[in-house]
Amino acid sequence: MKATVIGLGLIGGSMALDLRKAGLVTELTGIDSNPEHTNLALQLGLVDKIDTDKHSVSSADLVVLAIPVSSLCKLLPSILEAVKKDAVVIDAGSTKSLICRAVSGHKNREQFVASHPIAGTENSGPSAAFEGLFKSKTNIICEKSKSSAYALKVAQRVFDGLGMNTIFMEPEEHDKHVAYVSHLSHVSSFLLGQTVLDIERDEKNIFALAGSGFASTVRLAKSSPDMWAPIFEQNAEYLSQALLEYIMHLQRFQYHLMKRDGKELHKIMTEANRIREILNGIEHKQPKPVIEK
Amino acid sequence: MKATVIGLGLIGGSMALDLRKAGLVTELTGIDSNPEHTNLALQLGLVDKIDTDKHSVSSADLVVLAIPVSSLCKLLPSILEAVKKDAVVIDAGSTKSLICRAVSGHKNREQFVASHPIAGTENSGPSAAFEGLFKSKTNIICEKSKSSAYALKVAQRVFDGLGMNTIFMEPEEHDKHVAYVSHLSHVSSFLLGQTVLDIERDEKNIFALAGSGFASTVRLAKSSPDMWAPIFEQNAEYLSQALLEYIMHLQRFQYHLMKRDGKELHKIMTEANRIREILNGIEHKQPKPVIEK
Repeated sequence: MKATVIGLGLIGGSMALDLRKAGLVTELTGIDSNPEHTNLALQLGLVDKIDTDKHSVSSADLVVLAIPVSSLCKLLPSILEAVKKDAVVIDAGSTKSLICRAVSGHKNREQFVASHPIAGTENSGPSAAFEGLFKSKTNIICEKSKSSAYALKVAQRVFDGLGMNTIFMEPEEHDKHVAYVSHLSHVSSFLLGQTVLDIERDEKNIFALAGSGFASTVRLAKSSPDMWAPIFEQNAEYLSQALLEYIMHLQRFQYHLMKRDGKELHKIMTEANRIREILNGIEHKQPKPVIEK
Repeated sequence: MKATVIGLGLIGGSMALDLRKAGLVTELTGIDSNPEHTNLALQLGLVDKIDTDKHSVSSADLVVLAIPVSSLCKLLPSILEAVKKDAVVIDAGSTKSLICRAVSGHKNREQFVASHPIAGTENSGPSAAFEGLFKSKTNIICEKSKSSAYALKVAQRVFDGLGMNTIFMEPEEHDKHVAYVSHLSHVSSFLLGQTVLDIERDEKNIFALAGSGFASTVRLAKSSPDMWAPIFEQNAEYLSQALLEYIMHLQRFQYHLMKRDGKELHKIMTEANRIREILNGIEHKQPKPVIEK
């Protein structure tokens, strides 16, 4: 299978590494609008060659799109136009509604499998890519019924090859859940970082006083704004709702705090402790490199 | 040196292990109001023996208090009353103002060194204790001038033995900084957990969709309410201020989100990215077990 990977960052790069390792591809071509990324991807051996004018798309058996979701919406229709008849196109976007809408009436819609392999670290670019990023993680395929049986079979082979567990959802349902379970975490982390940087102008204080707890909650504030700004914009409705609920909880806590109502604070924290079992499960399914990076 | 450790949880237990390893103590006695903790501490070899009626306090050369800060304020004056003339008392409380105030006029005040060894994990109890928890972390001593030179020397030997870097601060300054750099992280994590549990009533969804990012931001929601409720209550003023600023940042973000102002969102995230260098430093100073626990 000849594959073209568009977007050679953490996700595209790691996917390229795993596709090769799983023996799924005979030839790996990379496309990226950033020349530094293409040079680095070649150096690191993520792909066999670089294609600067998207020629490889028309001869590829598989095209993987791992670019910011705003670019994805723009590029996807023309990619679906350019591919050969039996080629399969999959994406790795963290939102699904607008991406599915961008190709909803497309004559080649059934060659596309709308996917969201849920994996990542706070690092970005080709040098952040590593083998095994996707192992034991969840992949979500949306609008299953709009992809051909053949396209789904190829996509399933790809995600199985990455070691992922695939589940199916509709785009709106997907976007709503990830707003709470992923996007909100990122916003909370970015703004926690911002709040602390704002007040602790002498950064030596942060450095001396911050422990592993702070590092853990603020880790995602290192994430790429180029990647996340379009995700947040595309998922603004659901994310905004999640944010409002989060703010409501914070305000309620602050109210009890000002009343020195330790009993109520204790009760809220005890309820939040229920997350323990869920987290133990999640940590169990993470391969080491993801936690440590 | 004969030492009595009051409170045999993560902090007291780990301190006992490290004090012994550093060769600083010849005899280690443990006190804990929870019989399950004392049994477990003996089984795990955290201490040599258990003292159920606090008799050991009057013959100890060193008394370490590692109990919730509310209990600390209540117990500390009587401990300072009970110790022998050349004994040194140190605490490990995460707040300092009220603790220092509790013994401010005490006739034996100079035998006490008000300390905050900044270390921990989201786990609690004797079984969470491990050797090396404090290594390369920061310890803060407050009201240095109110402790005798001898007490400071002993305390310094203890914290050096744990591998910590000690810095000095006044209690109010300490409480303000930790509100932002530690307590706020815990609140944000507890309430992020709460928000997600609230909406995702079907916990299978959280489990399937959550990645390492979610796990990282919500990890602290596993922390002990018994320990944290008193800390939050004692530091309510500064923590409330930190919370209000955090909420303000979240609301500003939500405003730009609703306006689909990707440029402004990008700008906020780029500013927050400055946390990267600080985090790289913090991660560098964490020994492995703390990150992985």
